Amino acid sequence: MTHPLFSKHEDTLQKALAAIETRGYWSPFAEMPSPKVYGETANADGEAAFKALLNQTFELDQPTTGETVGAEVSPFGFPLGIRYPKADPDTLLAAAATAQASWRAAGPQAWAGVSLEILARVNRASFEIGYSAMHTTGQAFMMAFQAGGPHAQDRALEAVVYAWDQLRRIPADAHWEKPQGKNPPLAMHKRYTVVPRGTGLVLGCCTFPTWNGYPGLFADLATGNAVIVKPHPGAILPLAITVRIARDVLREAGFDPNVVTLLATNPNDGALVQDLALRPEIKLIDFTGSTQNGTWLERHAHQAQVYTEKAGVNQIVIDSAADIKAVARNIAFSLALYSGQMCTAPQNIYIPRDGIRTADGTLSFDAVAQALADAVQKLVADPARAVELLGAIQNDGVVQRIEEARTLGHVLVESQSLEHPAFAGARVRTPLVLQLDAAIDSAKFTKEWFGPISFVIATDSTAQSLELAGKLAAEHGALTLSVYSIDEAVIEAAHEASIRGGVALSINLTGGVFVNQSAAFSDFHGTGANPAANAALADAAFVANRFRVVQSRVHVEPKAAPVAVG
Amino acid sequence: MTHPLFSKHEDTLQKALAAIETRGYWSPFAEMPSPKVYGETANADGEAAFKALLNQTFELDQPTTGETVGAEVSPFGFPLGIRYPKADPDTLLAAAATAQASWRAAGPQAWAGVSLEILARVNRASFEIGYSAMHTTGQAFMMAFQAGGPHAQDRALEAVVYAWDQLRRIPADAHWEKPQGKNPPLAMHKRYTVVPRGTGLVLGCCTFPTWNGYPGLFADLATGNAVIVKPHPGAILPLAITVRIARDVLREAGFDPNVVTLLATNPNDGALVQDLALRPEIKLIDFTGSTQNGTWLERHAHQAQVYTEKAGVNQIVIDSAADIKAVARNIAFSLALYSGQMCTAPQNIYIPRDGIRTADGTLSFDAVAQALADAVQKLVADPARAVELLGAIQNDGVVQRIEEARTLGHVLVESQSLEHPAFAGARVRTPLVLQLDAAIDSAKFTKEWFGPISFVIATDSTAQSLELAGKLAAEHGALTLSVYSIDEAVIEAAHEASIRGGVALSINLTGGVFVNQSAAFSDFHGTGANPAANAALADAAFVANRFRVVQSRVHVEPKAAPVAVG
Repeated sequence: MTHPLFSKHEDTLQKALAAIETRGYWSPFAEMPSPKVYGETANADGEAAFKALLNQTFELDQPTTGETVGAEVSPFGFPLGIRYPKADPDTLLAAAATAQASWRAAGPQAWAGVSLEILARVNRASFEIGYSAMHTTGQAFMMAFQAGGPHAQDRALEAVVYAWDQLRRIPADAHWEKPQGKNPPLAMHKRYTVVPRGTGLVLGCCTFPTWNGYPGLFADLATGNAVIVKPHPGAILPLAITVRIARDVLREAGFDPNVVTLLATNPNDGALVQDLALRPEIKLIDFTGSTQNGTWLERHAHQAQVYTEKAGVNQIVIDSAADIKAVARNIAFSLALYSGQMCTAPQNIYIPRDGIRTADGTLSFDAVAQALADAVQKLVADPARAVELLGAIQNDGVVQRIEEARTLGHVLVESQSLEHPAFAGARVRTPLVLQLDAAIDSAKFTKEWFGPISFVIATDSTAQSLELAGKLAAEHGALTLSVYSIDEAVIEAAHEASIRGGVALSINLTGGVFVNQSAAFSDFHGTGANPAANAALADAAFVANRFRVVQSRVHVEPKAAPVAVG
Repeated sequence: MTHPLFSKHEDTLQKALAAIETRGYWSPFAEMPSPKVYGETANADGEAAFKALLNQTFELDQPTTGETVGAEVSPFGFPLGIRYPKADPDTLLAAAATAQASWRAAGPQAWAGVSLEILARVNRASFEIGYSAMHTTGQAFMMAFQAGGPHAQDRALEAVVYAWDQLRRIPADAHWEKPQGKNPPLAMHKRYTVVPRGTGLVLGCCTFPTWNGYPGLFADLATGNAVIVKPHPGAILPLAITVRIARDVLREAGFDPNVVTLLATNPNDGALVQDLALRPEIKLIDFTGSTQNGTWLERHAHQAQVYTEKAGVNQIVIDSAADIKAVARNIAFSLALYSGQMCTAPQNIYIPRDGIRTADGTLSFDAVAQALADAVQKLVADPARAVELLGAIQNDGVVQRIEEARTLGHVLVESQSLEHPAFAGARVRTPLVLQLDAAIDSAKFTKEWFGPISFVIATDSTAQSLELAGKLAAEHGALTLSVYSIDEAVIEAAHEASIRGGVALSINLTGGVFVNQSAAFSDFHGTGANPAANAALADAAFVANRFRVVQSRVHVEPKAAPVAVG
């Protein structure tokens, strides 16, 4: 008896299974905000839907205290004025436990089918979610649409298909029959029941609330768990819309919608989160945020499986290049994209102090640094175009960090405020690029400076650059490592460094792919092999411990005859 | 370029893959100590090999301080007198790290092939290991042979095949090509390198050193890790022989044998183990033992993935029965087998105080209790036969526990010392069975009384029995739950209780299968869903986080042409 939503989406699931096996390019969700795909009025409708949410109480039919919370402010310069129903954690935990009982019993096909139906509906809301992501994270619209919409949906589907790939291997039952020589065989019927952990807690971040929040949410759902979604207080809306859609789908499919609930909070909700994270009912936690908070969860929430993505120091090693301008253009884009507020954005750029080889002969360290500086400056020279790349700074902490960083060394590129042509109050800053020296500045560059802050670092040699890159990644965490070299031996050495550092390597990116980008179904985001994350998006380990199997066995009649002896 | 040992054992691996998919009966290792399978002189040779090890220094070509350790005493009444090379943990950690580098680079096929070759050789040593297991654990020979030999080898192979099943899904490389409309596609070549965690630590127990130790050891090896095997000081020999074989195979296959090393210790090695378990080099820990030690590891060894099997309270619910004598015979066997020193042995037997339904009408509580008592007494009435079932008590702690338990309530069956006909000094005790009442004695029966100690507990009803069973399993842990009923509704209720308790259920066992038994490739041993274990033997979750994947990506020429537009 196949669940109808499973049948409806089975083709997508099959294609996704093939995609995670071959890891080539694949996506069922169109990344371009094209009227042909999403509908002629989709953009206007989505923007209108977003605007209609402003200065209202967000409607969500779930247990509430009757009060409201919420204080989101758009990084583009205006308060959203949205109030969310306040929920009591105890009430949500009880509601989740109640809802989980029948959800658990529905089984793997229903979990996959409902998850995929939620995703299909979320996809149709991509513009509304895109504008919501834009005005909570500060991403420019195109990025907010893509990263907050289809790319996040890809990562969600990836989590669902990994879950399904594991669940489908567990047979519902088995006939076990052990020969006993001349005696009749021992025969048993065995039943295997997939038992979800219970209730999961998803702790969202303020820069990629959906992209980083969906994998845990959908991995939990697809393995039969209930989920409490606790967004970052600064970026509630994209997840609130998602929760509303999830609840609609659950309700329509005949389930208790409290399988998914929203715990919206006011800023400074740390104590509330810590209390909730240690509750015995919480069996799964997915967290994206600071190393401090993530490590606290890993070390204290012993009752739960804890999946974290934390801070890291992403690095670029420049050894040699055919075309330094192409290198510089690509790196500058990576530094500027969403003002470096990506967990994958590069920070440390290592260049040998004696310069590098290029097709046109040796280029001095200063010349390489200047090429990078020029490329950054060129990219942000036109404010109207620049803001579509930079977006806005998510919060004042990042602005303060730029101020603090600018005293660390020689400034190669100064960070500037830009006026946004459409949003007068937008908090826009261009990248700050500093020059440091590996010999004396390691205390400065061995920590994350989250935001549009990067360091061009002089090293003794490429060998030292790679040594540093591997060591920093292993000790302080990293999500990306990038190398530029025309020397195969250096590229192999970079592979070795990436393995030592447990960090994904990009090689000679000079075209339309940037180190910040991570493609679902093909690129593992994070490795779980260094302190930046204890899990990867997504793999078997990300899903296989979100459920357990409980079996039974009972004697039945054997099918085979005793073995004739003698 | 397939590794020759992978080719050699590929057929076994394919059969094992099929087995974990269908979970029917399968085993490549003959469980009967038959001369036809193992060779006419295998038993005598194995016993001679064991005896030749006594009162000698165990030869093991690995880093040592030059000193020796070891104080094993056979539960059958004589000191083994075996001294093992003492190893310094720092030296072993360094040797493991060195050895791991080339082992890592060998890749998944080599890891699987070498693991399977080790197992094939271990299988040939089953008699030697069987006698070693007998004289360290106290198991009677047949059980020591089976559980210490082929059944342990089955569990090891199961871990290898689960590892391989996950590893084979990760492609070595991929071609990723993303259409760009009228522009040329973006094309990249991606490389995926499986990166093992590093060094694992296997902490053995004194009752099933190989059966419980092999899964972690072989899961680590099959995912490319180095392993330090730290046996329980009371049961070093079976693992020492295993390590020696593993090192031989590694050396012959061209690897540094320090991929597997032995850390033999004297009794009371707790401080040494705690120090080692927190070392940053230790990335994986597999532990079988007390709840106290297991929980300590889970809460302190944050640098490692920790897999534990701890204490639990196994339970039997008797609701009704067609043939109470068959029920009693089966239960009595489970209580007597290896003197209840199995993590799967039942302890709490719940019977309604108003009696049970049988084919011959209602049987009073006292009559059921008496039937159980009679069956136990009958089973141990003949000492010469009894000792082949009971084996010997592993350590004096168990004897003292019997003394302590005997004061807890009305004694239904008294525990007795038996003379072993072959071993004058053997520490043999028959099962102690007490009568308790659920209404007043819960403090007594909600903890594990490891050893030949069981409680027949009067409850208000089967509903209360099942309520207790689910609750105890969930709160205090359990590896087994057994129900006897002729009522389908009760059996379904038992399923629900087993799911609430996260514990495997056996139904109406009255024949040749006993609740203590757990068959590799078919029965999950432990669920990871209650406090008795945080993992199951074996499943995807047991292996998927013992390695990570590190990728690289580089642009290549696209294969497809741009899409014609217009």
